[in-house]
Amino acid sequence: MSEKKQVTNQAGLRGVNAGRTAICTCGVEGMGLNYRGYDIIELAGKSTFEEVAYLLLKGELPTRSQLNAYVKRLRGLRELPGALKEVLERIPGTAHPMDVMRTGCSMLGTLEPEAGFDRQQDIADRLLAAFPGIMAYWYHYARHGRRVDTVTDEPTLAGHALHLILGRTPKPLHRDAMDVSLVLYAEHEFNASTFAVRVATATLSDFYSAITAGIGTLRGPLHGGANEAAMALIERFTSPEEAAEGVKAMLARKEKIMGFGHAVYSISDPRNVVIKQWSKRLAEDTGDRTLFPVSEAIEKTMWDAKRLFPNLDFYSASTYHFMGVPTDLFTPLFVCSRITGWAAHLMEQRADNRLIRPNAEYIGPSQRAYVPIEQRG
Amino acid sequence: MSEKKQVTNQAGLRGVNAGRTAICTCGVEGMGLNYRGYDIIELAGKSTFEEVAYLLLKGELPTRSQLNAYVKRLRGLRELPGALKEVLERIPGTAHPMDVMRTGCSMLGTLEPEAGFDRQQDIADRLLAAFPGIMAYWYHYARHGRRVDTVTDEPTLAGHALHLILGRTPKPLHRDAMDVSLVLYAEHEFNASTFAVRVATATLSDFYSAITAGIGTLRGPLHGGANEAAMALIERFTSPEEAAEGVKAMLARKEKIMGFGHAVYSISDPRNVVIKQWSKRLAEDTGDRTLFPVSEAIEKTMWDAKRLFPNLDFYSASTYHFMGVPTDLFTPLFVCSRITGWAAHLMEQRADNRLIRPNAEYIGPSQRAYVPIEQRG
Repeated sequence: MSEKKQVTNQAGLRGVNAGRTAICTCGVEGMGLNYRGYDIIELAGKSTFEEVAYLLLKGELPTRSQLNAYVKRLRGLRELPGALKEVLERIPGTAHPMDVMRTGCSMLGTLEPEAGFDRQQDIADRLLAAFPGIMAYWYHYARHGRRVDTVTDEPTLAGHALHLILGRTPKPLHRDAMDVSLVLYAEHEFNASTFAVRVATATLSDFYSAITAGIGTLRGPLHGGANEAAMALIERFTSPEEAAEGVKAMLARKEKIMGFGHAVYSISDPRNVVIKQWSKRLAEDTGDRTLFPVSEAIEKTMWDAKRLFPNLDFYSASTYHFMGVPTDLFTPLFVCSRITGWAAHLMEQRADNRLIRPNAEYIGPSQRAYVPIEQRG
Repeated sequence: MSEKKQVTNQAGLRGVNAGRTAICTCGVEGMGLNYRGYDIIELAGKSTFEEVAYLLLKGELPTRSQLNAYVKRLRGLRELPGALKEVLERIPGTAHPMDVMRTGCSMLGTLEPEAGFDRQQDIADRLLAAFPGIMAYWYHYARHGRRVDTVTDEPTLAGHALHLILGRTPKPLHRDAMDVSLVLYAEHEFNASTFAVRVATATLSDFYSAITAGIGTLRGPLHGGANEAAMALIERFTSPEEAAEGVKAMLARKEKIMGFGHAVYSISDPRNVVIKQWSKRLAEDTGDRTLFPVSEAIEKTMWDAKRLFPNLDFYSASTYHFMGVPTDLFTPLFVCSRITGWAAHLMEQRADNRLIRPNAEYIGPSQRAYVPIEQRG
């Protein structure tokens, strides 16, 4: 491990094409994001999350009747099996909610296994519809001892997820903000969790195994966990001035500031423009005079000091907070959205599969003679 | 998906260095396998599985006193938490046992979470000691309604796992064969499941998330599931002549024969020599006149027809079968061994981490104009 600084070109596979995709382009010319050819800005402004899910999973935007049928279908898939609820009740309230999503997905795979790949679209729909219930059932039971109904009369997934979290009908403005957030989080090419899904899929493993791998990978603070870390940062400060000073001090101590920069985008994160507008709208609606100004002060400080731009995670933090979402459910909500992108990549990988098995550069000991145990020491 | 045959150099990342490792070399000059510089043939012939686990996890072979302490330590970590047993009891008997391993590992991560990376060696030991119990507790409960004790007085992991599966003290010959098998399965460089572990680890996710990703990836028939598929093949035939004819017919129909060839080895799988000898010994001991001769006939047919050699999975199948291991526990036993290699790679990735985030070659639609929903169709 002494070669810590000796980074080769392949470190982290940055810039290496690990396969082909028709689902998404991101970071072309350092910016820009398209789902199946459609600009994310247009999708976030004009399409609902269900339309985007349909686009990602089936390749084309739905007609009105296709969309209506799809929304209805997803609504019918929200109930959880009794055995899954019993498992969720055995996960302690101190657990990381992403461990709950991972375990819930894995358990569902034992109860409703994938018998053959011909039912893969059904499993994608099932997980899409069930994840908010897995998250919320555990949350209310573990934290407040309440067994909640995982079925709501909210027609959309955004409304459903928010309703389940809050335990009441959400404000229309918040439902809309959640819908946009789910659109923005849905897909992002060969990010680490999606790549993990493809690595698992490529052994011809089942749907749940691959998605479980995606959840476990998304959990890390260098990936999905970044929005929670951003919230923790923002909440440290009570004024823009304090935030600017605090972030400068953190930079001086070479501390990592989450929610800035990106492995693929070099100029800006196109999703940030959209989510920042929503954070601002919700701040005005809520009468916030702290979180949004503090967020802007951090953004300005990071740009002035490091020329680093906020990514989607940064203003998602305050947006979710304004809706009343507890911070430790931010990354589980990411799962509720990204299941669409993961599933699309899984099906794409299966359609043209090759085992993903790279090589490694060996830096260990040369071949050495075996020493019998009594002569070691 | 129409470009199905247009394979680029990067397909499956074959031959691409995705990182560095000091743990293992495999396939150098088309053959050969070394764990931390020691030849697998010597390790399989002279070291126990616990010695090899120690070597992989800590970098050096243990002295006698270190080994004794390590064996004792692992023995003390075999009991499962009550909540985990309750979860295992809710997994149906029809479930794939790898789904049980995946769910059990994920659930344990909610009960004994990784609070910080400084305890990672402890979690490696815990999983190593607990996996046989997770496998066997579910197996006996789901299949025979029996709640078994996951603690045995077997000093070694090989004896412990076999004892738990059989429900009785195993024959010394079988215990030895299992020990060798675990040594052979322990580690294999950047194979798909280990690579999945590293992808998950590189987001700085927790230990259980990464291992859960490994289990889900190993499950596929192109990876760990191959030993079960090999057994299913061997069991089809009642004589060497029938096997030779049957395999020729399968090849003529272009059916995939599992247990032959390898993504990395081009000349031979060094582990095959070892496991084949053990399969032969167990066949002689059992008085078998079918499985081993059928296996040899399949091997010869594959070599004559395709110049393909058996890999570790092929003779592992009959070896496990002779010990009385049910076929659907073959891949879970692979987990009980490979946890050592996965854990070693996880710790190595953390020690010199970079997010693993490749690029993709885009083959989808060009940017297209958004069409409002009422105008689609």
